[in-house]
Amino acid sequence: MKKLILDLDTGVDDALAIAYALGSPEVELIGITGTYGNVLLEQGVRNALAVTDILGHPEVKVYKGIEHSRTTDSFEVLEISKFIHGDNGIGDVEIPDSPREAESESAVDFIIDAVKTYGKDLVYVPTGPMTNIAAAIEKAPEIKDEIGDIVLMGGALTVPGNCNACMEANISQDPEAADLLFRSGAPATMIGLDVTLQTLLTYKETARWRDLGTKAGTFLADMADFYIKAYETTSPHLGGCGLHDPLAVGVAVDPTLVSLLPINMKVDVDGPTRGRTIGDETRLNDPHKTMKVALGVDVPRFLDEFMTRITTLAQHAG
Amino acid sequence: MKKLILDLDTGVDDALAIAYALGSPEVELIGITGTYGNVLLEQGVRNALAVTDILGHPEVKVYKGIEHSRTTDSFEVLEISKFIHGDNGIGDVEIPDSPREAESESAVDFIIDAVKTYGKDLVYVPTGPMTNIAAAIEKAPEIKDEIGDIVLMGGALTVPGNCNACMEANISQDPEAADLLFRSGAPATMIGLDVTLQTLLTYKETARWRDLGTKAGTFLADMADFYIKAYETTSPHLGGCGLHDPLAVGVAVDPTLVSLLPINMKVDVDGPTRGRTIGDETRLNDPHKTMKVALGVDVPRFLDEFMTRITTLAQHAG
Repeated sequence: MKKLILDLDTGVDDALAIAYALGSPEVELIGITGTYGNVLLEQGVRNALAVTDILGHPEVKVYKGIEHSRTTDSFEVLEISKFIHGDNGIGDVEIPDSPREAESESAVDFIIDAVKTYGKDLVYVPTGPMTNIAAAIEKAPEIKDEIGDIVLMGGALTVPGNCNACMEANISQDPEAADLLFRSGAPATMIGLDVTLQTLLTYKETARWRDLGTKAGTFLADMADFYIKAYETTSPHLGGCGLHDPLAVGVAVDPTLVSLLPINMKVDVDGPTRGRTIGDETRLNDPHKTMKVALGVDVPRFLDEFMTRITTLAQHAG
Repeated sequence: MKKLILDLDTGVDDALAIAYALGSPEVELIGITGTYGNVLLEQGVRNALAVTDILGHPEVKVYKGIEHSRTTDSFEVLEISKFIHGDNGIGDVEIPDSPREAESESAVDFIIDAVKTYGKDLVYVPTGPMTNIAAAIEKAPEIKDEIGDIVLMGGALTVPGNCNACMEANISQDPEAADLLFRSGAPATMIGLDVTLQTLLTYKETARWRDLGTKAGTFLADMADFYIKAYETTSPHLGGCGLHDPLAVGVAVDPTLVSLLPINMKVDVDGPTRGRTIGDETRLNDPHKTMKVALGVDVPRFLDEFMTRITTLAQHAG
């Protein structure tokens, strides 16, 4: 069975990504590694533990990752992140703290160990900055040839960024880490704004979760409604909120949900285009493509999978 | 039979584009409209007349277009353009002036008249700035619904630009014109650096033209060698020169040479990304896509078509 690690800055859509993974019988979620971005590392780890509990899966272990980017020595949450995800990261919805703690092993070591244990069966899904996976590749470079796939939410190839004209939020947190990953030769599938802004959630769907009458359903509905409301301000032309992180999990479970362009990528780290994800012109004619970028998505099928999996989970979680 | 108009700033690869069109029995080249860019308008018109003569097709009419961009009142050739195309635009190769003159009808009126006459059978192929077609669409907006296709060489979607990180040379000349075209709703197929830097010409191929022993063959070989030599300085990683303009003609003749992404596009006109061709995020979820962008190309098949068509033409032109 395919093994998944989610690397999350647990945020609203990260929590939905956890739900998607737990609702997918084809995969086993063997752990969550924490990162920073939507929230501070500590808050994200707290949220991951609490969310797995409320979704009925307290067996999922959570590992602490690196607290800030490769080029900074600390991290502060941006105001726009608080606006979109709430001060607590999960739409300011109150859910109980987990009685559990994060594991003592570091996220970086857990990633390396998991590659050694599961090899090509392992799919790593980072939906925040690429800081942890970049550190793992630096510590154990051979994992780039041993891992099954890295399905990342981040970047924008054929559409503008969401931080500025060039830069997508996850990549913006640590462009150097993403560039290290993109040029490393590791297999990676980029699920960027090209496709995630096509997969929209509206109040109509969240009402189905609320109607379940379960704690999990109410939590998911309240949290997602906060997020949809923020999108009404930040992206009024969309008519819903982007399902960024859940789509990455969806593709990790079933790659046929998207159409993929094989391409060798890089991340601009200098100048006004810093943080841009773009084809590496020096490897344009190298027939060996190490990455794939999703440019199309079967929207109705994904939304159907998304709702079916998460609704079923929320119904049975109690 | 499909009718072609080439809109050229006749430079080296523009001249190769003329040769490709004239060597393609599936299409009729009904005219060349002149623009500025690689050279001044006057020089480009002179070159188009002289090149059609030396290639044995003095029946091709040439029309003068607009001399500068929408936002300037004059145009000067960049030093880099002279380096790549030579002072005279055709690799500093001396060929006789044509005894013919440009037509008295303007390029813009000719384009509009041709759409009225040929409708969906007309494919317009601009390989310089989009100034003439933008003016034609402004003067007769209905042509956007009447024309067959606009297959343009320009832009870069999945790779960096060649003027700066964002901007490709043809688009850079008149970003406002390209933006008008891209947002107009006219059908357009973008053949950008994504694919044209994959289709490379080397001295090995040009030697075949020289070996023909014809005036046309010698001209093409000498001109292309100048261009390949310039690429050794500007893009040493490529190992040849990009067949930018000929690939656009190749796709106009046979769209199956490339793989195409349907997408609604725009051109950034402000800020540090001015001149960038990118998906229009406000029309991302509009199911009606007015443009297609080439992201893959069958390199061996295109190079074979390119060499066969142009070599045959150069052999019989005398």
